[in-house]
Amino acid sequence: MQRILSTELAAHPYERVRVEGWVHRIRRLKAVSFLIVRDAAGLAQVVVTDPATITVSEESVVSVEATVTPNTQAPGGVELTGPVIRVLSAVDTPLPFELHRPELTAGLPAQLDHAALALRHPSRRAVARISAAATAGFRRALEARRFVEIHTPKIVGSATESGADVFRLDYFGRPAYLAQSPQFYKQMMVGVLERVFEVGPVFRAENSDTARHLTQYTSLDAEMGFIADHRDVMATLTGTIAGMVEEVRERTGYDTPAVPPEIPAVHFTEALRIAGAPADEPDLAPAHERALGEWARREHGSEFVYVTGYPMRKRPFYTHPDPADPSYANGFDLLFRGLEIVTGGQRLHRHADYVAALSAAGEPLAAHQGYLDAFRYGMPPHGGWAIGLERLVARLIGAANVREVTAFPRDPRRVAP
Amino acid sequence: MQRILSTELAAHPYERVRVEGWVHRIRRLKAVSFLIVRDAAGLAQVVVTDPATITVSEESVVSVEATVTPNTQAPGGVELTGPVIRVLSAVDTPLPFELHRPELTAGLPAQLDHAALALRHPSRRAVARISAAATAGFRRALEARRFVEIHTPKIVGSATESGADVFRLDYFGRPAYLAQSPQFYKQMMVGVLERVFEVGPVFRAENSDTARHLTQYTSLDAEMGFIADHRDVMATLTGTIAGMVEEVRERTGYDTPAVPPEIPAVHFTEALRIAGAPADEPDLAPAHERALGEWARREHGSEFVYVTGYPMRKRPFYTHPDPADPSYANGFDLLFRGLEIVTGGQRLHRHADYVAALSAAGEPLAAHQGYLDAFRYGMPPHGGWAIGLERLVARLIGAANVREVTAFPRDPRRVAP
Repeated sequence: MQRILSTELAAHPYERVRVEGWVHRIRRLKAVSFLIVRDAAGLAQVVVTDPATITVSEESVVSVEATVTPNTQAPGGVELTGPVIRVLSAVDTPLPFELHRPELTAGLPAQLDHAALALRHPSRRAVARISAAATAGFRRALEARRFVEIHTPKIVGSATESGADVFRLDYFGRPAYLAQSPQFYKQMMVGVLERVFEVGPVFRAENSDTARHLTQYTSLDAEMGFIADHRDVMATLTGTIAGMVEEVRERTGYDTPAVPPEIPAVHFTEALRIAGAPADEPDLAPAHERALGEWARREHGSEFVYVTGYPMRKRPFYTHPDPADPSYANGFDLLFRGLEIVTGGQRLHRHADYVAALSAAGEPLAAHQGYLDAFRYGMPPHGGWAIGLERLVARLIGAANVREVTAFPRDPRRVAP
Repeated sequence: MQRILSTELAAHPYERVRVEGWVHRIRRLKAVSFLIVRDAAGLAQVVVTDPATITVSEESVVSVEATVTPNTQAPGGVELTGPVIRVLSAVDTPLPFELHRPELTAGLPAQLDHAALALRHPSRRAVARISAAATAGFRRALEARRFVEIHTPKIVGSATESGADVFRLDYFGRPAYLAQSPQFYKQMMVGVLERVFEVGPVFRAENSDTARHLTQYTSLDAEMGFIADHRDVMATLTGTIAGMVEEVRERTGYDTPAVPPEIPAVHFTEALRIAGAPADEPDLAPAHERALGEWARREHGSEFVYVTGYPMRKRPFYTHPDPADPSYANGFDLLFRGLEIVTGGQRLHRHADYVAALSAAGEPLAAHQGYLDAFRYGMPPHGGWAIGLERLVARLIGAANVREVTAFPRDPRRVAP
């Protein structure tokens, strides 16, 4: 007999069927007992008249052949009666926490220590599906705009971009580093395919144990050529974010926020004023970002807001300056509900500009030979962005900590499980 | 004026248009000169009557406003006349090799040293699109079968699976390792979502400089629960490979091989006989795989062949044995044109079996605590596979070396660009 999913039961009234899954909950009442079986799709209620036949404990894996019986009181309007239960995998140890409460009651460290169990909770499982949908929406939106997917090296020969916060590894006896971003590679690939994207891990050896930082996270990168300036990048990003949110809504039914066709944008100098920060602040602090998020919602009814024109001295060397005032960048951050979830902008594209920028940054040109090649041999004006997937999903579902939306998070104190 | 792509020119006869791209080739004839402009879509021929107006060299990036003029002799049936050429990025240095020949004439090391340039060659660019299409086909096939995408840690706290061939890194003063595969994590996620897949980098510190090995490659992993045995996994894999090949054909027009609805499968002992290998060989050598590939084509008209039932002693500890003869595995390799491109099989799913297997392998149980949790708390019979993307694409297009199909390959001697 072919297995069917719990959500398909209602279509088979009075038929003998087979469902398989985990024993989500055992409810022993006076006259009858219920075995709630959880599968990928949902829950099925199995009616057991002789409680002695329930030999398994919660989270055991079972195969149940039974009759689908309509019962308006049961979840989904049906229950399974006359079951024959076969145990596929028996649990013979107490669970460190229960999975059948509406919320996980264990603290976050206990959840993370027992991730293989905690992730089974319907709330955590829903997050995994939301992340997958957001990622699929990202790809779909970009492929519709002629972007091509790439995969780039995560092991790099020189500690680039900033030099700090990189993980060092032993590469056959010499040092190498984990890539902090696919930045250089996606730029090089603009020279090949014009428009590219990558979904992949990035690594930051930042020793800060906050609710918004991970040492490995999933970066949704894109880069596009033949732009006028950073505003072309922002327009493409806005469409992409809308596509992601739409895919989450379609696939999971999650109540997602509206993405305005044009997300409000404020220049950095104006952002400081709105946030009540001193005019000589070089960057936005988390409190400023929160204030801007509230402002955008209040003044524009938008959960999203762009901040453009950050000071050049806070942006990486490849940043294209604003031609009208070269102390500010043709770049942007996108804040979602008061948290930066995307950084992007226009990049330099002329070889001479890179030589000057790297020299000014004190970077040895030889270490960047392969990267500089792209600009030596002709590159169009281009720009792009990097979305932090975990931050976006955390903001979307209202999680306070990115660890709540990451299956097996990595931070300075955690490399297991 | 909005830019259009080279492939859109024929739809705009006698109109004034703008195209943008790289100067692919300059042909100076007696009466006239041609500027061939390459963009993401193809090539456009620009007719220049005064050669003195061509001030740029090949690979410079230009914006050309011109009139679309039908000319049956020109590529695509149109050429651009009366051009006004604006230089977006000038190349003022000789190219290390030319891009406008049908094939790249530079040797592979020179191509890899100048990857940012070599990848622009239409043949290399086509490979990038084929890889992207194969990956998209993988996802599409699996999502249609209820698989959910996951992202798992690439930094792990213990050197697992084999202990050898792992890259070691400095994780805030203590050792950590780069994941050789998402194996343990995808298994744990079967306990959450039943069916999962991941597209991501894996790392092998194998000091072997062959045409089939990279120290980082893209692994297309899947894992599924509630199987009867490895044959359920093989059936799903066959459908997935067919979906990948189909997506490549649809997106790129590449002439792809047929994937039989049922790929021929031979047991390891039979495979040895077919390959003419001694019956006590513990594994298949590359020459044996080639012989099997020839056999499958000759006897079954199939470019693909499964080898099942490898000896358990050559498979990793989590491998499920064949219940009929526990010295052989419920696992398989998939060979494509005589090269192993996929390894997969059924895994153990009972906690006691893991404790026994790890103990037999001399692995400390404590190092696997988080992984063992999944089995302690109930796991269904499950299995999965890992496809090596670069190997598959190399085999598909007939490339002799996986470096020819990898944008920025990593091997023991190469970590740049």
